[in-house]
Amino acid sequence: MQPTAYQQLVSVFTRIYRFEHLAAMVGWDQAAMMPPEGNDARGAALAELDVLIHHSLTDPALAATIAAASSEDLNEAEQASLREMKRQWEHANLLPASLVEAKTLAGSKCSHEWRTQRANNDWDGFLANFREVVRLSREEAQLLSQHSGLSPYEALMNKYEPGMTCAELDRIFGDVKQWLPELIQQAMTKQSKEPVIAAQGPFAIESQRALGLEVMKLLGFNFAAGRLDVSHHPFCGGVAEDVRITTRYTEDDFTQSMMGIVHETGHARYEQNLPRDLVHLPVGRARSMAVHESQSLSFEMQLGRSPAFLALIQPLVQQHLGEQAAFSASNLAKIYTRVKPDFIRVDADELTYPAHVILRYEIERALIDGDIEPDEIPALWNQKMLAYLGVDTQGNFKNGCLQDIHWTDGSFGYFPSYTLGAMYAAQFFATIRSQFPDLDQRIAAGDLAPIFDWLKTHIWTPASRWETAELIQRATGESLNPAHFRQHLEQRYLG
Amino acid sequence: MQPTAYQQLVSVFTRIYRFEHLAAMVGWDQAAMMPPEGNDARGAALAELDVLIHHSLTDPALAATIAAASSEDLNEAEQASLREMKRQWEHANLLPASLVEAKTLAGSKCSHEWRTQRANNDWDGFLANFREVVRLSREEAQLLSQHSGLSPYEALMNKYEPGMTCAELDRIFGDVKQWLPELIQQAMTKQSKEPVIAAQGPFAIESQRALGLEVMKLLGFNFAAGRLDVSHHPFCGGVAEDVRITTRYTEDDFTQSMMGIVHETGHARYEQNLPRDLVHLPVGRARSMAVHESQSLSFEMQLGRSPAFLALIQPLVQQHLGEQAAFSASNLAKIYTRVKPDFIRVDADELTYPAHVILRYEIERALIDGDIEPDEIPALWNQKMLAYLGVDTQGNFKNGCLQDIHWTDGSFGYFPSYTLGAMYAAQFFATIRSQFPDLDQRIAAGDLAPIFDWLKTHIWTPASRWETAELIQRATGESLNPAHFRQHLEQRYLG
Repeated sequence: MQPTAYQQLVSVFTRIYRFEHLAAMVGWDQAAMMPPEGNDARGAALAELDVLIHHSLTDPALAATIAAASSEDLNEAEQASLREMKRQWEHANLLPASLVEAKTLAGSKCSHEWRTQRANNDWDGFLANFREVVRLSREEAQLLSQHSGLSPYEALMNKYEPGMTCAELDRIFGDVKQWLPELIQQAMTKQSKEPVIAAQGPFAIESQRALGLEVMKLLGFNFAAGRLDVSHHPFCGGVAEDVRITTRYTEDDFTQSMMGIVHETGHARYEQNLPRDLVHLPVGRARSMAVHESQSLSFEMQLGRSPAFLALIQPLVQQHLGEQAAFSASNLAKIYTRVKPDFIRVDADELTYPAHVILRYEIERALIDGDIEPDEIPALWNQKMLAYLGVDTQGNFKNGCLQDIHWTDGSFGYFPSYTLGAMYAAQFFATIRSQFPDLDQRIAAGDLAPIFDWLKTHIWTPASRWETAELIQRATGESLNPAHFRQHLEQRYLG
Repeated sequence: MQPTAYQQLVSVFTRIYRFEHLAAMVGWDQAAMMPPEGNDARGAALAELDVLIHHSLTDPALAATIAAASSEDLNEAEQASLREMKRQWEHANLLPASLVEAKTLAGSKCSHEWRTQRANNDWDGFLANFREVVRLSREEAQLLSQHSGLSPYEALMNKYEPGMTCAELDRIFGDVKQWLPELIQQAMTKQSKEPVIAAQGPFAIESQRALGLEVMKLLGFNFAAGRLDVSHHPFCGGVAEDVRITTRYTEDDFTQSMMGIVHETGHARYEQNLPRDLVHLPVGRARSMAVHESQSLSFEMQLGRSPAFLALIQPLVQQHLGEQAAFSASNLAKIYTRVKPDFIRVDADELTYPAHVILRYEIERALIDGDIEPDEIPALWNQKMLAYLGVDTQGNFKNGCLQDIHWTDGSFGYFPSYTLGAMYAAQFFATIRSQFPDLDQRIAAGDLAPIFDWLKTHIWTPASRWETAELIQRATGESLNPAHFRQHLEQRYLG
C-alpha cells in the first residue's frame, strides 16, 4: 500500500530528527568534552549537517506533500502534528539560503570577536561587526513579517515563542514595570534587617558534584537516560532519550553549581518526559522556549529556592559539604533569596531578573523595528539600568550592553522567553497549590509527587499538541496571568 | 573557473569525511558516555548516517567524475590521492545495497544475541544466527573476488589489508608455526626458574588514571587534540583532529589498564600525526589495519614492555600506586613478559598471541572459501588449540570459538592484521635500533625522540601516500620480513 502524504512527512521528519540527534550530541560534546584542536573539524562537520537539515526541509517536493497531507482525513493528533511540521517547514523556506548563510557568517564573526572585545570593554570594535548582524537580522525580520503579518520584531520573537505578540508583552511587561521597582526596594529594606551568614569555602568539586547528583535524584532525573557533566556555560543538551545537563563549579562557592543543577534538571525532566512515541516528530517536542524555561524555573525558583525545599535538602548539604552555621535551612533560604540590583543578568536574583529582561526587550525591539540604531544602545542601556535598578553602567560596556551573547549572533527576540517562563512557572505553581494547600509541608517531607505529576500531565506529556495559549489555558484554567508571578514574588520577598 | 574533476572529488570526499567525523564522535560517545536508554535513538541516527555515507559513495555521477579525473594531469601526490578515493569508491559500489543491508541486519542480530549466548556457552543457539552471517559473507566474498581476481577470503582480507595475499600469509604464518611452539616451551622453561612477585592491590581507579595520564604524556599524546576515558572494551576512536582513547580499570590489577593505555596511545599518535592538510581525504588517513596495529604494538610490545621503558616509568608507578617489592624495574619487566598459554586471545601474552591469530586465520579462511561449514568450527578449534598451545577447549565454547566478536558480524579477514602489525613493529624497531645502537639507554633515560621521529617520518606523515608494501620498503629498506619478529621474541624471551 502506498504511504499517505502524512506518512511520507513522518518519514521525512523522522530522518531530520536523526540528523538533529547527531547535531545535539556532537554539540554537547563540543561544549563538555572536546579538546581545543578538535574545534575546526567539529565546526565543519556541524555546518555540513546544518546544510543537510536545511536541504531536507527545503526540498521542493515537500510543498506538494504538505498540501496533500492537509487534505487527507487526519485525526486531531495528526492534525496537530501536521501543524507543527508546517511551522518548521515554513520557517526554513521563508528565508533565502543566501541570507541564512550571510547571517550565520556575520553572527559567527561577531560572536567570536565579541569574546575578546567584551573583555577589553571595546564597544567600538564590537559595533563594527554588530552593524552587519543588525542589518541582516532586520532583513530576516522583514521577510518573516511579510509572510506572517506580524511586526518585524514579533516575527523574530515568534521563532522562539510562537503566538506571542508585542501587544501582549507590552501589557505584561508594562504591568511589571509598575510594581517591580518598589517591590525591589521594599525587599531590600526588609532584608537589610535580616543578616545572612555566608558559607565558608573551599568546597571540593567532587563533593559539590556528589551533592548535585543526589539533588538530581531527589528531583527525579532519570540517569538511565541522561548525564551530568561540566561546561563553561551550564546548559541542557542532548536529545529526549539521552539528556545531557551541565554545570560549572568553583571551589569557593557551592550555591551556584547546586542551583544551576536544579535549574537544568527542570529542563531535563521536561525532555525526559516528552512522549517517547512522538519525540521524533515536531509535535512531540518542547512547546516553546518560554515553556521550556517555565520548567527550569518551576524547579529552580518555585521549588528550589523555597524554604520547604531547602529544608528538605539541608541534610544533604551538610552531609557533603560539612557542618557550618550557614547551612541551617533558614540561612540557606536567605542565601537563595538575597536581592541585590547589579550589572549582570545571569547572576541576577529572582526579583531583579525581570528588569534585565524588560530592558533588553525594549532595546532589541526598537532596534529591529528601526526606531534606534546600534550606536544608540549604550546610552539607552545606561538610562534604563538607572531607571529600573539604579545601576550606573556608563562607559562600562563589558558589564553593560556587551554582557550577553544573544545579540552577537542575531538571536533577537529570545530574551522575553526568560521572564515569560518565570510567569508560567508561577501560574503553574498557583494551580498546584490550589490543589494541594499543604504543598510546602509535602515538599519539606520529600513528597514532590504532586508537582511532578501535575507537570507531567499538563506540560510534559502534551508536548506541542496544542498552541501555547491553549496549553496554558488547559493546564491552569486561564490564559497567561502575570498576577501569579507578582503574588509569588510579594509572598516570598515581603511575606 | 570550473573545478577540475579531481577538485570535485576532493569536495565529495571532504563532505564524506565530515559525516564520518559525526559517526566517529557519536560512536565514541556510545561506548564511553551514553546512558543505556539512549541506545535505540543512537542506533537509528547512526544507521541514517551510514545510509547517507553509502549514498554519497554510490552516487552514479561519481563514476564519470572518477574517470575524468583519471585522465587529468595530476601530480604524483594527487595520483595517490585518486588511487585511495577509487579504492573506497569501488568497495562501496561492488556490493548491492540489498546485500549490505542483509549482512548488517544478520550481523547485528548475531552480535547482539552472541553476548548472551557466549555467557551461556550456547554454541547451538549461536549457530542458528551464524549460518546466515557466513552465507552472506561468502556472497560478499564471491562478489568482491569476481571483481578483483583474488580468492574469496583474500578479497575480504583486502578490505582491511589491501595488497596482502594468502600466498604471502601462508608463507609467513607457516614459518611462525615452525618455530613458535618450541619457543613458547623454551620461554616457559626459562621463566619457571625466575619467580615473579605479584603486585598487591587494591589500586584506586583515580591513581591508575593519574598514572595513565602521565604515561600518555611521556609518550607524546597531544591532550589538546584528544582525551582518555573509560569503556568496556578499550579502543582508539574519534578523528585525527580529536582522538579519543579509552581503557578500563579494575581495582585489583593496574597492569592491564596501564599497558592498555600505552597500546591505545600508539594508535592515537598515528592518528594525531597524520598530515592535517590531507586528513579529510582517504590518502591522508591510516594506511591499513595492520599498519595501525603496528603503531599500537610499537608502543606496547617494542617499547612498552621493554626493560628500558619499564625502568623509565618505574618511579611513576611507585609515585601513584605506592611502594612495594613488585614495583622494581626488573620485576615489572617480568610481569609484562610472562608467558602462559591460555584460552583467551585478548588476554594473551606477546608470545602466545600469534598462535591465537594463526588458528583464526586458518579457520576463517577455510570457512569463507567453503572448505568447512560453521558446525565444524568447534572441533577444528579444539584440535588447533591443542596443537599450537596445548590448551583443551572441548565443550568450552565460551572461552573457545565463541570468545571473539569479529565473526559475529561477519568481519572475516581482520584477524591477520594483529600479527602482521606485530611483525611490522618488530621490523620498524630493528631499523630504528640499527640507527641508534644505544636505543635502550636512551629509552631508559627518557629520550624517546629517536622512536617518535622515525615513526613520524616513515609511517605517520606518509599516511596512505604509498601502498603498504612500498611504505614498508621505503621505511625499512626491505619488504615485510618476519625474521625481525622472531629475532625480537627470541631476544626478549630467551636472551
